Amino acid sequence: MDVCQQIEKALHLAVNEITVAPSPARLASALNYAMFPGGARVRPKLVMAVAQACGDVSTTLVREAAVAIEMLHCASLIQDDLSCFDDASCRRGKPCLHIEFDDRLAILASDGLIVAAFERVSSVVHADAQAQLKLIRMLAHKVGAVHGITAGQAWECEEEIDIEAYHCAKTGALFAASTQAGAIAVGVDSAPWELTGNLLGCAYQIADDIQDVLGDSTKLGKPTNVDAKHGRPNVVHELGAEKAIAHLQDQIDQVIASVPACNNANFFIETIRHEAQRFLPKEIALSAA
Amino acid sequence: MDVCQQIEKALHLAVNEITVAPSPARLASALNYAMFPGGARVRPKLVMAVAQACGDVSTTLVREAAVAIEMLHCASLIQDDLSCFDDASCRRGKPCLHIEFDDRLAILASDGLIVAAFERVSSVVHADAQAQLKLIRMLAHKVGAVHGITAGQAWECEEEIDIEAYHCAKTGALFAASTQAGAIAVGVDSAPWELTGNLLGCAYQIADDIQDVLGDSTKLGKPTNVDAKHGRPNVVHELGAEKAIAHLQDQIDQVIASVPACNNANFFIETIRHEAQRFLPKEIALSAA
Repeated sequence: MDVCQQIEKALHLAVNEITVAPSPARLASALNYAMFPGGARVRPKLVMAVAQACGDVSTTLVREAAVAIEMLHCASLIQDDLSCFDDASCRRGKPCLHIEFDDRLAILASDGLIVAAFERVSSVVHADAQAQLKLIRMLAHKVGAVHGITAGQAWECEEEIDIEAYHCAKTGALFAASTQAGAIAVGVDSAPWELTGNLLGCAYQIADDIQDVLGDSTKLGKPTNVDAKHGRPNVVHELGAEKAIAHLQDQIDQVIASVPACNNANFFIETIRHEAQRFLPKEIALSAA
Repeated sequence: MDVCQQIEKALHLAVNEITVAPSPARLASALNYAMFPGGARVRPKLVMAVAQACGDVSTTLVREAAVAIEMLHCASLIQDDLSCFDDASCRRGKPCLHIEFDDRLAILASDGLIVAAFERVSSVVHADAQAQLKLIRMLAHKVGAVHGITAGQAWECEEEIDIEAYHCAKTGALFAASTQAGAIAVGVDSAPWELTGNLLGCAYQIADDIQDVLGDSTKLGKPTNVDAKHGRPNVVHELGAEKAIAHLQDQIDQVIASVPACNNANFFIETIRHEAQRFLPKEIALSAA
């Protein structure tokens, strides 16, 4: 099984466990709808890539850390799309969860996924309980109200936005959680991996900004020009398309330069280069040139 | 410091930690608004009472378990009140959070509290890491999408409601979490405490039903006749006021009969009797008689 298949299998097992009886039927449907079919699964693949780069990918804790982060990510997407936030109509090429179901089930499905994320990591039978607790603390930190994606989303509710704190929390946090989770789960020092995750998050944010302005809504499976609609900062509006793409390339170089010493750094760097091509499809780069 | 003061102090410390910079200012205000001033703090007092009945109340893990459960409870109240659920206007004698702030901050404050609950328990420096993991698993189970309060709330979104599963998940789950948390945090077997928590949850649900029909909205600090408005089951509608009050008394007797053998069962039983008087103020009992 390749990494993508391993991730899908683990996600299916995890969602199965929170949709069994006596889970209410519509909530169970909403949870499945939120998780499948997935997007690019960038974050769980990142967890697995860091674990593999550090020498070990086969443990249950690595896999469950990857599952937990994807669940937290999907919960954040459900909330982003709500009418009180982005008021989006489609996601991953199908109606948003709050449109297919309703606002209530959207909120409850996101609750269910957030809680399940912590349940997964705490339920692994693993020799190092302290590593599990560290993982849980780190995940909570990266999705919480101070530095995490909850804070990131809440910056959109402020009259004056702290751009750096906003991007760092809204996008960077879950990328840093992914790189750190891979390290913690295999028992190596996670601190040096935080920078790599943060830089990757910045790169992804730039790519997302570029796609929002230059991308094709049908291919992306979600609406474009959302930042303009909500008056939010976007790097293409600030720098123009050409400079924004150069800025993305520069950012990816920084990510690669930041990769900590590890057993298999080359493998990790190759994975990043490969994923970076997905960040910015060729036709966008060409159309901007 | 008495137990109430200990709980308030611990809650203030916990909320301070999730409202420091760079937490966005409005989110920080919303988190404080959600937690203070509190209600009766029934659930954290229950955690402390079980821990004391089992012989030890002074550990940080007991206190943080109590804090975590109150945070999860307050998060569920915020969500219950949203316009897409109960569409309530006031709670604890002041405007509901989504009215004082907005729907976005209500959702994000509840996210912040849910995440912080898991962060608190995972962050305690405690000799028994397995007990911490067990606490986290148990909490996730009791707030999750199968047996927990997320499932309980989701039963309200079904066309046909499973009344037993609904009450058990919506109210019983967090009471059972409270009794079990007190036991786990002091290292005794939590399994026998689940029944006591479930029975207490049932008693509380009956008292809540009675208050909804017979209570004074001003004294309760929240609207009454909510069940009739939403067409939800209510024991007073089913049995009449007099039988409902007798049913409550019977339920409290069952709670007391269920208390597991422990160092200080009498203390626990006295606490339950004392709290039961708050469940049903004398004037309601008299007015129904």
